[in-house]
Amino acid sequence: MIFALGIDLGGTDIKGAIVSSDGEILRQDRVATEASNGADAVADRIVSLATDLLDSQGASPTEATGLGIGVPGVTRADGTVVLAPNLDWHHVPFKSKLQQRLPGMRVEIDNDANLAALAEARAGIGAGCDTLVLLTLGTGIGGGVVIDGSIHHGASHSAGEVGHMTVLPGGPLCGCGKRGCLEALSATSGMLDHARQSLEAGEKSTLSDVGPLTPKAICDAAHKGDRVATKTIDHVTNYIGIAVANLLNVLSPDVVAIGGGISAAGDLLLNPIVASARTHTLEGLFESTTIGLAELGNDAGSIGGAYLVL
Amino acid sequence: MIFALGIDLGGTDIKGAIVSSDGEILRQDRVATEASNGADAVADRIVSLATDLLDSQGASPTEATGLGIGVPGVTRADGTVVLAPNLDWHHVPFKSKLQQRLPGMRVEIDNDANLAALAEARAGIGAGCDTLVLLTLGTGIGGGVVIDGSIHHGASHSAGEVGHMTVLPGGPLCGCGKRGCLEALSATSGMLDHARQSLEAGEKSTLSDVGPLTPKAICDAAHKGDRVATKTIDHVTNYIGIAVANLLNVLSPDVVAIGGGISAAGDLLLNPIVASARTHTLEGLFESTTIGLAELGNDAGSIGGAYLVL
Repeated sequence: MIFALGIDLGGTDIKGAIVSSDGEILRQDRVATEASNGADAVADRIVSLATDLLDSQGASPTEATGLGIGVPGVTRADGTVVLAPNLDWHHVPFKSKLQQRLPGMRVEIDNDANLAALAEARAGIGAGCDTLVLLTLGTGIGGGVVIDGSIHHGASHSAGEVGHMTVLPGGPLCGCGKRGCLEALSATSGMLDHARQSLEAGEKSTLSDVGPLTPKAICDAAHKGDRVATKTIDHVTNYIGIAVANLLNVLSPDVVAIGGGISAAGDLLLNPIVASARTHTLEGLFESTTIGLAELGNDAGSIGGAYLVL
Repeated sequence: MIFALGIDLGGTDIKGAIVSSDGEILRQDRVATEASNGADAVADRIVSLATDLLDSQGASPTEATGLGIGVPGVTRADGTVVLAPNLDWHHVPFKSKLQQRLPGMRVEIDNDANLAALAEARAGIGAGCDTLVLLTLGTGIGGGVVIDGSIHHGASHSAGEVGHMTVLPGGPLCGCGKRGCLEALSATSGMLDHARQSLEAGEKSTLSDVGPLTPKAICDAAHKGDRVATKTIDHVTNYIGIAVANLLNVLSPDVVAIGGGISAAGDLLLNPIVASARTHTLEGLFESTTIGLAELGNDAGSIGGAYLVL
């Protein structure tokens, strides 16, 4: 059987999996990242996790086609992690650290959102498709672009910044310093800001009675027909739909996948996103693309890592 | 020497060229399209033009690697022209018409803006690059996307509709029926509308004294410092820059090429487009892309046609 090791390196946990060539997880485990001990210690923990997974599967390292790792940050083609804020890493040659520890094994490294996109294109909602764009909705909006079955890195090696498309010129300030980015309007803080403004304007809402305002509280209230919550969902999804439409107009992908924590709200978000995308896409281009929820959830990173080397 | 035939089929003229494998035009000629005589007559005229070009070059049909044609409309992968308004064609199986007339020769067909993008990526401003996006500014805004050296068609076979990216939600109505498309804001009519509104609001301008308002008149007046003309250029280029920035954020292409009739104004348009793109692109992604004027002008279509089969 052909299989590979996929590693999803996060700020808190390292998730590892043995993944078959058809994207099935044969075995998985996780260990704490302990990033404060430095990149060499993290590399040691990854190697130990990988070795344990192989042992428990009764496999030797030479049987795996390789090991692919997703990191939460900016990577370069040479395997350097340029910046990973959650790990406090700056210009860490992480691929070479792992190669030193795993002689003879193929090691590849990429951004975690890129790997999630690759996983969705190969084994998730887009299984077997050519072109897929993933948007992950959460505290930020990340994403990845897969074209002709491979991650599209572009000239900067950092393509796929769908959250920083300008969707409202002169709009709210984004954490990146620009105005009107999709992330500023439709990620967690944009969603909360919109609801809060309505409440502060004195609009009646069940949201006034809940504890701290969260995306989940807003989605729950919208499910029950609360007007402020519904307006907030409409606002947020309108701009996501505009971004999706612009991707359709330019790339006409087979699939646009919507993932990330906020996407747990399911059809409540997906339906208005699709409606807005339809409104903003040139006639003839809309019907060719499937817009749907990402399917692999928290496993997407490790599955995508494995596909880097499968 | 390796060479191919490139044909640029327009509503008025058919341009043909013999193009070497390094993108040099060895010989070229044109004939009237006479579209009113129907698609079969147009096919006959293309074959006649191609044969004359080969004769004058002293070459036989078997020496060419093939014949590639750009058409001003929507094509399908099977070589059908789904819609070409300037030719009044609907669902014309044009590739097969040409194959019947040129037995043994490889024939390929594509949208003309896609071919211009391919030509710029292979032999123009992007010569030898992987990823290029072309925007053609004129009465409409068209474009094409080249990824990894090939035209990206996407699921609909109609990717590259950069003119219909939404750059101002709720903005002016576009000919396509949507609001706030780049084309509605920054193509000829959007440019003229903006200037006209300023004049009707009573703003002083040398444009009040010229004859019919045209993009050229506005560019000429802006060159001389006219305030209404300058504001109009700023407005138009701001939105082009936003569209370019969104392409950079998502695709991080090696090159963005600006072509089409309006681009004849050169740096007057290019500089503010680049400035706006810089403002709206995520840090770290801007510097990797060259944004510049397309280089192949009216030859881009036939050179791109040749590259389809080279």
